[in-house]
Amino acid sequence: MQKIKIGIVGGTGYTGVELLRLLAHHPHVELHAITSRTEAGVPVAQMFPSLRGAVDLKFSDPASGILEECDVVFFATPHGVAMAQAPALLNKGIRVIDLGADFRLQDTAVFEKWYKLPHSCADVLKSAVYGLPELNREAVRQAKLIGNPGCYPTTMQLGFYPLLKNNLVDASALIADCKSGVSGAGRKAEVATLFSESSDSMKAYGVSGHRHTPETVEQLSKMTTQAVHLIFTPHLIPMIRGMHSTLYAKLLPEAQSMSNEDLQQLFEMTYASEPFVDVMPFGSHPETRSTRASNMLRMALHRHGDTVIVLVVQDNLVKGAAGQAVQNMNVMFGFAETAGIDMLPVMP
Amino acid sequence: MQKIKIGIVGGTGYTGVELLRLLAHHPHVELHAITSRTEAGVPVAQMFPSLRGAVDLKFSDPASGILEECDVVFFATPHGVAMAQAPALLNKGIRVIDLGADFRLQDTAVFEKWYKLPHSCADVLKSAVYGLPELNREAVRQAKLIGNPGCYPTTMQLGFYPLLKNNLVDASALIADCKSGVSGAGRKAEVATLFSESSDSMKAYGVSGHRHTPETVEQLSKMTTQAVHLIFTPHLIPMIRGMHSTLYAKLLPEAQSMSNEDLQQLFEMTYASEPFVDVMPFGSHPETRSTRASNMLRMALHRHGDTVIVLVVQDNLVKGAAGQAVQNMNVMFGFAETAGIDMLPVMP
Amino acid sequence: MQKIKIGIVGGTGYTGVELLRLLAHHPHVELHAITSRTEAGVPVAQMFPSLRGAVDLKFSDPASGILEECDVVFFATPHGVAMAQAPALLNKGIRVIDLGADFRLQDTAVFEKWYKLPHSCADVLKSAVYGLPELNREAVRQAKLIGNPGCYPTTMQLGFYPLLKNNLVDASALIADCKSGVSGAGRKAEVATLFSESSDSMKAYGVSGHRHTPETVEQLSKMTTQAVHLIFTPHLIPMIRGMHSTLYAKLLPEAQSMSNEDLQQLFEMTYASEPFVDVMPFGSHPETRSTRASNMLRMALHRHGDTVIVLVVQDNLVKGAAGQAVQNMNVMFGFAETAGIDMLPVMP
Amino acid sequence: MQKIKIGIVGGTGYTGVELLRLLAHHPHVELHAITSRTEAGVPVAQMFPSLRGAVDLKFSDPASGILEECDVVFFATPHGVAMAQAPALLNKGIRVIDLGADFRLQDTAVFEKWYKLPHSCADVLKSAVYGLPELNREAVRQAKLIGNPGCYPTTMQLGFYPLLKNNLVDASALIADCKSGVSGAGRKAEVATLFSESSDSMKAYGVSGHRHTPETVEQLSKMTTQAVHLIFTPHLIPMIRGMHSTLYAKLLPEAQSMSNEDLQQLFEMTYASEPFVDVMPFGSHPETRSTRASNMLRMALHRHGDTVIVLVVQDNLVKGAAGQAVQNMNVMFGFAETAGIDMLPVMP
Repeated sequence: MQKIKIGIVGGTGYTGVELLRLLAHHPHVELHAITSRTEAGVPVAQMFPSLRGAVDLKFSDPASGILEECDVVFFATPHGVAMAQAPALLNKGIRVIDLGADFRLQDTAVFEKWYKLPHSCADVLKSAVYGLPELNREAVRQAKLIGNPGCYPTTMQLGFYPLLKNNLVDASALIADCKSGVSGAGRKAEVATLFSESSDSMKAYGVSGHRHTPETVEQLSKMTTQAVHLIFTPHLIPMIRGMHSTLYAKLLPEAQSMSNEDLQQLFEMTYASEPFVDVMPFGSHPETRSTRASNMLRMALHRHGDTVIVLVVQDNLVKGAAGQAVQNMNVMFGFAETAGIDMLPVMP
Repeated sequence: MQKIKIGIVGGTGYTGVELLRLLAHHPHVELHAITSRTEAGVPVAQMFPSLRGAVDLKFSDPASGILEECDVVFFATPHGVAMAQAPALLNKGIRVIDLGADFRLQDTAVFEKWYKLPHSCADVLKSAVYGLPELNREAVRQAKLIGNPGCYPTTMQLGFYPLLKNNLVDASALIADCKSGVSGAGRKAEVATLFSESSDSMKAYGVSGHRHTPETVEQLSKMTTQAVHLIFTPHLIPMIRGMHSTLYAKLLPEAQSMSNEDLQQLFEMTYASEPFVDVMPFGSHPETRSTRASNMLRMALHRHGDTVIVLVVQDNLVKGAAGQAVQNMNVMFGFAETAGIDMLPVMP
Repeated sequence: MQKIKIGIVGGTGYTGVELLRLLAHHPHVELHAITSRTEAGVPVAQMFPSLRGAVDLKFSDPASGILEECDVVFFATPHGVAMAQAPALLNKGIRVIDLGADFRLQDTAVFEKWYKLPHSCADVLKSAVYGLPELNREAVRQAKLIGNPGCYPTTMQLGFYPLLKNNLVDASALIADCKSGVSGAGRKAEVATLFSESSDSMKAYGVSGHRHTPETVEQLSKMTTQAVHLIFTPHLIPMIRGMHSTLYAKLLPEAQSMSNEDLQQLFEMTYASEPFVDVMPFGSHPETRSTRASNMLRMALHRHGDTVIVLVVQDNLVKGAAGQAVQNMNVMFGFAETAGIDMLPVMP
Repeated sequence: MQKIKIGIVGGTGYTGVELLRLLAHHPHVELHAITSRTEAGVPVAQMFPSLRGAVDLKFSDPASGILEECDVVFFATPHGVAMAQAPALLNKGIRVIDLGADFRLQDTAVFEKWYKLPHSCADVLKSAVYGLPELNREAVRQAKLIGNPGCYPTTMQLGFYPLLKNNLVDASALIADCKSGVSGAGRKAEVATLFSESSDSMKAYGVSGHRHTPETVEQLSKMTTQAVHLIFTPHLIPMIRGMHSTLYAKLLPEAQSMSNEDLQQLFEMTYASEPFVDVMPFGSHPETRSTRASNMLRMALHRHGDTVIVLVVQDNLVKGAAGQAVQNMNVMFGFAETAGIDMLPVMP
């Protein structure tokens, strides 16, 4: 099989370097270009010594046109960048996977409210597919443009999905108490995420409003006829990678007779054929490290009376970002869905 | 003022050594005895070099009778120990502060269910005072025997109290999503709390049932005429000290017209004169490190529609254990309530 | 190519589970047996959820004879175990790779002094090959029995080798100031390696004498005609994986005219064809994380007058243990040396 | 006793906030002013919630003249700032303690080489006293201007002092392999010290040359008639606070007959009356956490043949910076040397 050519825009952040780690050994791809205006000419492995001997690329100037030689371009950039550059690439028949927020929200008014930026290509946006393969595989297969989900939204959607889809819980009273490792904040020089600030301590943040709420609500709303109301409380945890979402949902009266076994079976059947979703035995306590550096997401059910608690863990940089993007690429190009992303979690 | 004599049973764990740190410089006390059967004769500072030059005591054999020379004895022991030894001390007029669970629950049936141990002194238990000074100061002042609260229950009670006391929220739908540093698991040789197991990872635990639930429910029930139902979900976080409780409560219909300012004012007034409770501005995100190594507990309010979210942080070993025990001692003996425990948090 | 059958003795520790991670996806092997007396019958993935879906084995009773069905058996056990069981396996033509200390030291008197245990199979020991492929590849290729090097010794040998081999430094004045992540202490329930004990702190240990000194001295002595004297100072660092050795050696008078470029070239040429040794540019500061979860060892040179400083980093569980063991197996069986162990380091 | 008035320039960094923690409860001082051009008007406790309720000051504009109302002004600023502002304050009779580098090096040529900045007040510099009270107490007592030592130099000087002072070791072959927590890098927004960059990893840095070398050599040279040559290798360790220096020195031929007991006794006697230097038993392994958040420095001796190894630990922000500055202030003003800085280390 001929290898496809990969371009990456914004390879100096954590999702960018994680894409490099995953794609450098992917059997069906060839890293062709990685762009950075500020680092043009610098060998990637000079910035990231972990890639010495494995990635020979240098950063290219985005203006060089090299991205147009690719089959697919990943944007691992702050919002606004993909929006500006994707249309031209799409016009040339190049597929685009945006790991940022530009193509996640179909409602541009909502986008503009949360991202303080007018959406510059609403028409292109309409063709974008929300890239959560487990819930959206067929659309991903046909897609030219993917809006890759946020890290938190991935856990919330996969955790609530079996409950909402089957109309078992009150969609107006969902609570997601979520915890993320610090790499989720990106590789930006900021005081708040210095080691001495965020180590040996934790806090909630964005409790009054976080950009992942509208994205999640838009998607959850597709699963149910009920109106969705979600309370989403993110917390910053002193670990590099890892995300733990603790989801609370109230069973509707007609579902309260379901046994724990019924619920467990429902979840297991929903994800039975998914290579990257692991439903653990009822009452388990998944650890984030059981997914570290892998594309696996694990979940487990608990119950208190009429409240179902779903514990969901993933690596925020893999299933929550770069791994999911590669999974989407695999589906789009007809590769084995696990190609290049079947590495086992690193433990300890 | 003459100094009172202190005895500590079980000084080899984290709450024990924290008591030593706090009491070694307390202006009104003298460390008189610290017992450990296995370490008798060993200088305390040999086991804990942080105390070299500050604590000259050696561990004593508990059978030596030295505890009977004390004015007050702290039990920093697993459950069952205080129950066995406290009655004899109390009979001799010595006051007892138990940092374990033996004297926290008045309902012995509940105690026996959760601790798998018959309660051996139900009569003495009746005289025990639950040592949360902010809610129980007068009783503490008169007490001979204190059941010092658990770490999680301290945060849940102080966070929910203004809401329940004023009958503002639905007591049957309380959720406490709580996160604790690893020192809460104690200084026991166990695989699960090894550095390589609990670092750079997190998990929930005891979601199906944790001993701090019955204790908290018993106390919350005193605040309200409603029946209390609490979902309590503890999580283990890779930090040494620190506890963050994220509390969710639903406003009752008659309280839904309250403004955020009304709620904020209620909390501020409730704790206005408390030296160790800090109500931060509405919408704040307290960090656990803002209480590190100090007896301060901080909280902040948020709101989503009819749901009030209270974020509460403390150092689990200080306000959640040893510091609160010293605070109780100060109240019992008429010392300034802040004596010996007014150290500022360590930041960074 | 037919797959060889793998047996692992002692799969419940960190080197054992790391072997499983590496071998589960190795293209030329099949995991056949993993033994544990205490865990017999338990699925491996129940103890290590990171392996769910990837490893279906259960722990076997070592007495079941299942190891005799294997082509190669790895011992990831405390010292003494391999010594007792290896001879019988070797007699049946099964190759043995011991990750413990039983077959590292040829001098049994030294072994017995440091391990407080008589060596029970001195004859078999004579046939053991010290498994550092970079320095010993031909012998490894022929070996039936491998003593896999300790983690510290790997860094010290590879770092000092070009200097000693070429007789450039005073072998009687070598200093190795080494730092290890906590996983090096193993997966044993011990107070000293609890999260709350070894996090946010560091210390030296074994400064007066450590078992890796005699092993290293025995090997360094083969590189030079000088008498070797080594000061080895290990430190425990609050990180899960990772080892950083800071090596100091004094140039002999006849070598003091060498330029930095000469030294650099010597190191680069020495390791030019090694897939797992990376000589970074002169004056670099390698980070341990640039090797995290990979089999790569990186080093860089510095110089102060007549003192050469070599900075060496590796993942103590991979190149320092399980990865090196698989590398040895690859060499022994004629597989590509990088087969199954070419995963890229995890960053961040 | 009347309280003296304190001014702090540069209170937004870690040494600044640590000064606030120590001085807020100091019995003989009153916090009068803390300046920051960028934060003028902002309450200090808003930036550092750990100080809520304890420090009521707001940041002042340095141009306001408020510093001239103080008795002593601390500079917790980057180099260059104290140099510019100290002379005017000194002229008004205000004492100055500079926690930066401006007044540490008497040789301005060396200063200019390492700090790339001309020294603007060489005359004032001559009156500056190097503020290491253990070695320089009388001069500190008389001083108007203190150059507070760097963190690494404090450990190296106190560790080597008994050996050099008594001419026991070869001063031309000193090695200091030092390890620092990340707070030593300050509270600046930089990628290299982000949590996700410096957690679970370590590295050496500045091996080819670090500013603390000339400072240390200048001071060590005062202890001996030998020419001093020091190899200083700093490393960055994933802990917030803490410094561990591993010092290697070679006994001179005439000293090689000294027993370990002789050496131990020498160290113990040297520091017998020092409140903040603890010589632990021979062969101990001090942990950095045994000094966490306290002004104590601990050391222990080891020996390999003719090489003496001194292990030294301290909290880099306390004895290595702010605590030592307060200790200097105590000596200058005739307060008890331990006033305000006698807090016990925080363990765990």
